[in-house]
Formats: sequence, structure tokens, C-alpha cells
Amino acid sequence: MSEGAHAPAGRTGPLAIIAGGGDYPPLLAGAAAARGRHVFVAALEGAADPAAFGDCDLRSFRLGQLGSLLKELKARAIGDLVLIGSLPRPSFGALRPEASTLRHLPHFARAFKGGDDHLLRGVVQFFEGQGFRVLGPADIAPAMVSPSGALGARSPTAAMRETIATGFSLLAALSPFDVGQGAVLADHRVVAVEAAEGTDAMLLRVAELVAAGRLRIANGDGVLVKAPKHGQDLRVDMPAIGPRTLAHAAEAGLSGVAVRAGCVLVGDGRGLGRLADAHGLFVEGVP
Amino acid sequence: MSEGAHAPAGRTGPLAIIAGGGDYPPLLAGAAAARGRHVFVAALEGAADPAAFGDCDLRSFRLGQLGSLLKELKARAIGDLVLIGSLPRPSFGALRPEASTLRHLPHFARAFKGGDDHLLRGVVQFFEGQGFRVLGPADIAPAMVSPSGALGARSPTAAMRETIATGFSLLAALSPFDVGQGAVLADHRVVAVEAAEGTDAMLLRVAELVAAGRLRIANGDGVLVKAPKHGQDLRVDMPAIGPRTLAHAAEAGLSGVAVRAGCVLVGDGRGLGRLADAHGLFVEGVP
Repeated sequence: MSEGAHAPAGRTGPLAIIAGGGDYPPLLAGAAAARGRHVFVAALEGAADPAAFGDCDLRSFRLGQLGSLLKELKARAIGDLVLIGSLPRPSFGALRPEASTLRHLPHFARAFKGGDDHLLRGVVQFFEGQGFRVLGPADIAPAMVSPSGALGARSPTAAMRETIATGFSLLAALSPFDVGQGAVLADHRVVAVEAAEGTDAMLLRVAELVAAGRLRIANGDGVLVKAPKHGQDLRVDMPAIGPRTLAHAAEAGLSGVAVRAGCVLVGDGRGLGRLADAHGLFVEGVP
Repeated sequence: MSEGAHAPAGRTGPLAIIAGGGDYPPLLAGAAAARGRHVFVAALEGAADPAAFGDCDLRSFRLGQLGSLLKELKARAIGDLVLIGSLPRPSFGALRPEASTLRHLPHFARAFKGGDDHLLRGVVQFFEGQGFRVLGPADIAPAMVSPSGALGARSPTAAMRETIATGFSLLAALSPFDVGQGAVLADHRVVAVEAAEGTDAMLLRVAELVAAGRLRIANGDGVLVKAPKHGQDLRVDMPAIGPRTLAHAAEAGLSGVAVRAGCVLVGDGRGLGRLADAHGLFVEGVP
């Protein structure tokens, strides 16, 4: 990480949160503010919900307003930023780049030609090249990241731990192909592998296979495994689970969720643990 | 392969086709009959459509009637058999085993505890243990198996050949996990990986992602790759493509289908080539 050129170094200056969709950006904004940092939220239009940030200092930007965003960050002497939240893969047409953004486009056009890893690496390099320090949620709010061990009351059985180990090996094998943040194992086999559809759609698919009688998941069997890909930049692309993940896992008849400890966003861990208990699921951070 | 104990050796004696669903069992029955073999079709209830076999010598069996099936095969002095066609993964409850089948159940109960490979290996071992020779479609009707090169008029571009090579590497990496007969690559990345849902459902998912604007597949991009897993017994579990595969691939906006030459069932290859032309797809057998 390069040090910010436009702002006092250290982790106490103002922090920009470049916010996509989901619950985690507002949660992170709250955690950073609670630690005494001044937070400026750059809410990405069509992804972030400004209302979710309460009375945070906030301004909305289109993706095509990168020039304006940079100007605003520099005017505010902000050196540290976090990129967090979901973002629909945009079309260049939908970007509607403003004039001050056009000169940055070739950088992103190159980044777009690779997979997701490549794109995000390009985004990080861009901001670093502009003199910003790109931080991750683990730097700002370590409590939002998966701890080691159980989040709730339940833990996986010994047999389940073997299945989980197989699942993590599978994800590792997929990793060189820039795919495979998640998989579902049940009935002693791999029943679903996540790619472009995302975790929620994968879990819905498993639920549908079960409902159609094409797949049986015995009581106490069935697990969602989630881990980052090798080389995935955990500052900007940490895999995440949340209340919806647990609801879908329960719907699919799984017995729990296993994540790599320290590498997966869980948001409000205590709350998620209580929710896991209510669903009868384990949520285990595996070192 | 062990030699049949109940029938004349060689490949000219009567042949039993233990038939599941789909177009390939009747196609294979026709091909074997055309080569002058007497064919007996054991149509599995709930999977095979007896009407599709024309005037073939045919009898229907429930899965639970293994004892009756063995008796019939032995009474007919049949030593060679082929297992072909799709089969819903049965529940033990639905088997309704007859008395003469009960003693064989422990064998299958063990086989059921593994993945698909394990189950099929158990089925092959069972029939071999009973003295039958288990043949594959490639032994009976080599024309039904993917040749090397293009099935229709179109061929993949050089760039597409690289994508296809990546796809086959991905499938090879998944292979040790008894998963991954298929994947879709597009937009320079892996967009879908097949597991329990099957190829058709995977292609429909890609079509839905495209329709929802979550995935863009440029003209000339997008390919379905299919290959057997390492150690997959091609006699009883050859991956297959057919007219429905092509229809779904076209619907998903792919430019073609790549299969491992000699390892994937294509049925009527010429017909499939013409259909590929009509869809504007390539179907390529890659050595």
C-alpha cells in the first residue's frame, strides 16, 4: 500500500467509504465513526442506498463521475479510502462518463478485459496511483470479519469437518480459474459450484433441486463453504455472508455454513450467530 | 472386462440394452440391430419410453426388479450388456425391491454412499460379478461418439480455442472432486460450473443471467465445454450432448460447444452437425 499523498498519514484522518449495495457499507461507516474517524460516504448510484447511512456526510456519484469523485476526495484532503458493497457489473454504455472521467477510461478498459480479480486489481491500482491508501474492512472494523470457531451455538460434527475440508480443497482447485468463492456439498458429494450467479442464486438452485426430488440432503448433512480465491485482494473483494445467506442455506436444507476465518465478511457477527441459532445452522470460521 | 459366463463370447451374440431415458438408448438399439446383433431392451420404468424402441424385443423392469432382470438375461443366454440413458437418482423407498432383489441390496447400499462415479462403478462391478461383459456405446456404435474436429460447418476461432483449453483445464481441476462434466466460459471468465443440476439447467442459468443483464456474452464469445471426469467409466457414464443441449446453448447466446473427442455421446452426429449449423453454433471435438 502506498501512503496517501493528499492527506495526513496514519489511520486517524478522514476516511472515504466508496459504497456499493448491501448492509455492509453502512455497517462499516458506523464502525469507523465509532472509532472516531470522520467518514465521508461516496454512495454509488444504483447500488448504495443513501438513506441507509443515517446522518453520515454523504454524496452520490455515478460510476461515470470518477473525475468528480477524485476532485471531492482531494478537496476534502482525504487520503484513506475503502471500497465496499456489491456492484452490478456495469456496461460501458451505462457509465455515462463525464468529461473529467474520460481520460481515466483506458485504464479501466484494460482492467475490464480480465476476470473479476483483474478488474478489481485495476481499480485498486488506479486509486493507489492517484495517491490514495486503499484500506480493507479488516483494517477499519476487524469485528466485521469472520473469527475462528463458531459464530453461534452450533458447531460442525467431525464428519462434517471432513466434508468442509473437501469443500475448501475444491475451492482451492478452482481458484486459479478466477472462480469458486463458494460451493455446496451434501450427500457425500459436491452438489453446486458458484460462478457468475453468486451465492444466493446457487443456494436457491440447491433448494429447487431438493424440492424437485432431484437431490436429497439428510438431516445434519449439507454445507455451504465460502473462501476467498488465492490472490484475491481482501481489501476490496472480501467474500461475504449475511442474514440472506443464512436464510437461503436453511431453505436449501443445509446444516451450516463454513467460512475461512479472517477472510470473509460477516458484518454483525453476534447478530449473525443469533440468527444462525434461530435457523438451526452452524456458522464456523475455519482457520 | 470379464468375459460373459452365460453366453457365447465375442461381440455377435445377443446384446441387452439396459435403457434409461433420452434419445440415446433407442438410437443405440437401432445401431446394434443394424450391425446384425439380436437386441433385448430392458426398459427401466419411469425413465425409458418403451414406444421409442419400435418393434424391439423389449421388457420393462422397475429398478427393484434386479432379480427378475438377471433371471431374464440368463434365460436368454445374454452375456453382453450396455447400460445407457438417464436415470433419476432413485430413493431406496422408490425401489420397491422384489424378494429376489433383496440379497443384492447391500452391494448397492455401499455403492450409494459415494459420489456418482462410485455408484456407477458399483453397478458395473455388480454385473461383471454376475458374469456379464459390460460394453459401452463406443464398442457397439462408435459413430454415436464425438469425433475429432467440427460436427457442422462452423469451427472455433483461435481465441476461442484458448478459451476452450482453459475450460478443459478447469474441468480437469474439478475432476478429483467427482464433479465438473461441464462449464460455460464467456467474457474471458468462467461463468458457470455444472454440478448436480446438470448441463441443461446450467445453460438455462446462463441464459437467465444474460436476460437479467447480469452477464454479457459478446457475439462469437461463449462456449460450453464438456468432458468426462478422470476415471469416469465411459462404458456406463459417458457425458452426452444432444439437440436440447444445442437449443439451450443457442438460447444462452453461446457461440458453440466443445467436447473431448472420443469421450462424449453425440448420438446422430450428422444430424447434430446440421442442427448446429441451423443454430449458428460450432460443435467441436477436441483431441
